[in-house]
Parts: sequence; C-alpha cells; structure tokens
Amino acid sequence: MLIGAVEAGGTKFVCGVGNEKGEVLDRISFPTEQPEKTLAQVVEYFKDKQTQAIGVGSFGPIDIDRSSPRYGYVTTTPKPGWANYPVLSTLKSALGVPMGWDTDVNAAALGEATWGAAAGLDSCLYYTFGTGVGVGVFAEGHMVHGLVHPEGGHVLTRRHPDDTYAGKCPYHGDCLEGMAAGPAIEARWGVKGSELGPDHPAWEMEAFYIGQALASAILLLSPKKIILGGGVMHQAQLFPLIREQVRRNLKGYVASPAIESAGIDGYIVPPGLGDNAGLCGSLALGLRAYRDAL
Amino acid sequence: MLIGAVEAGGTKFVCGVGNEKGEVLDRISFPTEQPEKTLAQVVEYFKDKQTQAIGVGSFGPIDIDRSSPRYGYVTTTPKPGWANYPVLSTLKSALGVPMGWDTDVNAAALGEATWGAAAGLDSCLYYTFGTGVGVGVFAEGHMVHGLVHPEGGHVLTRRHPDDTYAGKCPYHGDCLEGMAAGPAIEARWGVKGSELGPDHPAWEMEAFYIGQALASAILLLSPKKIILGGGVMHQAQLFPLIREQVRRNLKGYVASPAIESAGIDGYIVPPGLGDNAGLCGSLALGLRAYRDAL
Repeated sequence: MLIGAVEAGGTKFVCGVGNEKGEVLDRISFPTEQPEKTLAQVVEYFKDKQTQAIGVGSFGPIDIDRSSPRYGYVTTTPKPGWANYPVLSTLKSALGVPMGWDTDVNAAALGEATWGAAAGLDSCLYYTFGTGVGVGVFAEGHMVHGLVHPEGGHVLTRRHPDDTYAGKCPYHGDCLEGMAAGPAIEARWGVKGSELGPDHPAWEMEAFYIGQALASAILLLSPKKIILGGGVMHQAQLFPLIREQVRRNLKGYVASPAIESAGIDGYIVPPGLGDNAGLCGSLALGLRAYRDAL
Repeated sequence: MLIGAVEAGGTKFVCGVGNEKGEVLDRISFPTEQPEKTLAQVVEYFKDKQTQAIGVGSFGPIDIDRSSPRYGYVTTTPKPGWANYPVLSTLKSALGVPMGWDTDVNAAALGEATWGAAAGLDSCLYYTFGTGVGVGVFAEGHMVHGLVHPEGGHVLTRRHPDDTYAGKCPYHGDCLEGMAAGPAIEARWGVKGSELGPDHPAWEMEAFYIGQALASAILLLSPKKIILGGGVMHQAQLFPLIREQVRRNLKGYVASPAIESAGIDGYIVPPGLGDNAGLCGSLALGLRAYRDAL
C-alpha cells in the first residue's frame, strides 16, 4: 500500500510516498511560494503516484475543527498569500483520495507514536525548537485539537535569575518561544546557537527554560514520552541538562519509574524518526485517513 | 436505569444513585475512616440498590493504568491505612457490577462534559481550588491518564510582584497549589479566605496565579471550556478577575471567539452541576462503565 505525505512548512514543502511500515520510498522538496504555485507542485508530484490516501501536516495556524466552514484552511498567518487559504480542499479536489490534515507538530507526535520513539504508546508530546517553538499533543490515542489547536510554545515560564534578555515573542515577550527559540538564543548571545560551543552557558540557560516548560506539561498531562526535535535540539548536550532541570522542578512529585533516576534518559528523547519525523508524521496522518475511510 | 456513584474523598465519602440523565435520586455521606470500614459502608449502601454499574471518582494519587497490577489502588497517600489499598477490587468483588474508576477531578470533568457546563463538548478542563488544587483533563472525548494522571495543580507560576509569601506546597513551595490553594490564602493573609471581603487585594493576587496557570493550559491544550470549582471559587468575584488575567497573559494570541471579548464569560465558568459536580462525575463514570460493558 502506498500512502502520500506532505510536510507543509512555511519555508519549504516536502512531499513523499511511503508505506504502512513508515518507510519513505520517495521524496521531493521545494520552496514555499504563493499557494497556487506550491499546491500545484504538490498535485503534480502525486498525480501518478497511485497513493491510497495522503496526509498533510501543516504550518499554522490552521483550522482543524471538522465542523468549521474553514476546516482545512491555513488561517491568520502573516505569510503572503496563505492567510485564509483552503489548502486541504484545493488538494483534495485535485487528488481525489482520503486526506488527513493536522498541525505539523501534531503530525510529528503521531508519527513518533506510530513508528518512532513513542511507538506503541497512547500518549506523547512532540516539541520542536527552531525558529519558533511548537508542540504536538497526542493523548489517549488521539491528536488533541480543542478550541483551536495546541500552541504550547507560548506557555509562560519564570525567568532565569541571570537572564536580562527581554524576550523575542511579538505577543508575549518572554514566553517559552520568546526565551528559548533559535532567534532568542541568537539575540541574547549575539551569535547563532550553532556557533556556540557545547560548554557555553547559553545551554544551561536554554535547558532552564525548556525544563521548566516540560515539568509543567508533565504535571498537567502526564505524557508517556516527551520527544524534542528541531534545529536547536541538534545540540545534543541539551538533553542531560534538560532532564536535570525537569527533575529539579518536579522535586520527586511525580512518582513514576519513567521519570525517576535513570528512567528519565528514556523519557525525554530525540525523535526516533530523526530528520524523517516531519514527513513520517504526515505519512501517519495519511494512514489514519485511509483507515478512517474504510 | 440506575447507576451508582461514589465520590471517594479524603475527608468524606458520598455515595448516590442516579440515572442516565444525570439526576441524583438518592445520596448518603459518611466520614472517611479506615478503608475496611469505609468501603464496607459503601457496599452496605449499594447492596440492595440494584444499580447496573457504579463509578468511583477517588482522591489520590491513584493507579488508573489498566495494564498495571495495581490498577484500582489508592497509592502513595499519607492518609493512614489507605496507602497501596485496592479500593476498586474490594468494591468490585463485593458488588459484582461493572465499575468505572478515575480521579475525582477527571470524573468531575466527565460529569460536566456529560450534563454540565461543557455538555456536548469533547474537551474541557475541570479545576478545583480548595485545600489543594486538582485538575481533571478531558480531551477528544477521553479522560486523560498517561504516565500516572494529571497533577496540574502543581504547575509552576511566576510570582506576583507584590507577593512575599514563600508558598505552601511541601514539594514545590511556590507552585500553583502552593500559592493559590485555600491554605496558602490563609497563611498569606492571616485569616481564612472566607473571612476576607470581596474587595480585599487577596482576590486580585489569587486571580493573578490562577489566570496565569489557565493561560498556559489554554496554550498547551486548547480546551473548549474551563470549569472552576472548589471552596475557593465560591468567591464569585474571582471569575471576572481571572478572565481578565487570562486575557492579559494570552495577549490576543489565541484567536477564537470563545476567548475574545465577551465570549470569555462563557468560557471560564463555575460547575454547571454546582455542588453535585463531584457525585455526578462519578455517575458519569458509572454510565461509561455500563456502556463499555455492553
């Protein structure tokens, strides 16, 4: 069985074809331009691929409320041409197969729960730390939607006592994204994070913010696995620092072997699907759409 | 159809019989003593009631992982006699009907989503502010369990700039419960909250902490309704103050009519089931157990 996957990003689109084992058999990527042009490229790619369903994990904000007249739209993005654009119906009418639709991070969480670091678990959180901070929520076997969709990158955190940086978020200033996304690291230290050595104090400060947000998320949601992806997390030295901060904040309150002592090394982890996490997430969305249509 | 409900609290047990409309037809309450004695009272109450299923919403921490050998236990409570006690199996073997089992706050969330303020919605959060702070999470039509169960009363919040109180939580000091539960109000101001007038600055400070926690929960989970119960919330003047703080923290980021302008008055609300929220929650658990057993 062939399933299509679209990782619809604000900078580039990745399209691929895979199977029910999560194997990616073919892929292509192109820059995100005006929606008419970019979506035509998606249609062109899939038109002779004989996929049985296609999943789209999209940049946002998007409308994922099935009862909404704007279900399947990208909504209030500042990206030229894309605000209030009916992405899903444009693709669906051209391709004529069942389609899955969700946020890129919810898709990534589903992919990880299907074939990756959370395989077989009925809950996980997927965070991406890059130019922004996004969070996908998978709970009780379902991607969480709700009123709009999770925007957990903007939760409020306490300031690090030595941090004088005002914060980069245009809405909240010093929310998690404002303090811990890539642009905040660069603004705070004057160089890109990728140019800072692994022992630079930037990483302890970064872990301070991330660990705090994860601790509160663990308390509120009790996820069975937390997966941290995105460019910032290529700094592998962050993982032990973040686990330490999570423990420091929880103070033994959550009594679970998954979090206590060495268990936490297998609890807060990088994506099991590596750089395929995004595309495999969309593949998992497509697979779910195929099964839902049976 | 008759369904039984047990609101298993650390101070008192409430047992009742109701129907599928959420109507409570009979109720009784007695103090929580040693588990053998208290659970025998529960069994005695139900033995001739001819209920088709019984739901138990319990104080915690409890084990709600169906694959765990301790499923149905109260686990690490300091309450004498109750630590590691098999509450569910004790009741089930005596009563022989399908039984539902969850935290008191998850049950209350389910009850509100079935017959109360969130009736017909597939997601809501239920907070109780009393001697502690508890949170029930209902998302995509399911009560959220996960690794253990939600303990969102202990999320970390930023301090109010005028607040010098150290915090009451034995684990975290100044987490949400440490700053905003009833005992924290009493310790901070020297008198019980119920003795403070509605214009006392205590309430603005209380709303500061609650509003902050709700804003982060909205960002992470996007619930369709937030219900605030418990003794502290009998101070009705808190509701507008909390809504204002939520808006102040979100800063327009979550674009939904439910939160914008006057919509928020119907979004952050008291329990629709009033003082029956707990018992009706257990009733809803029982109803679900009945349907699952069909």
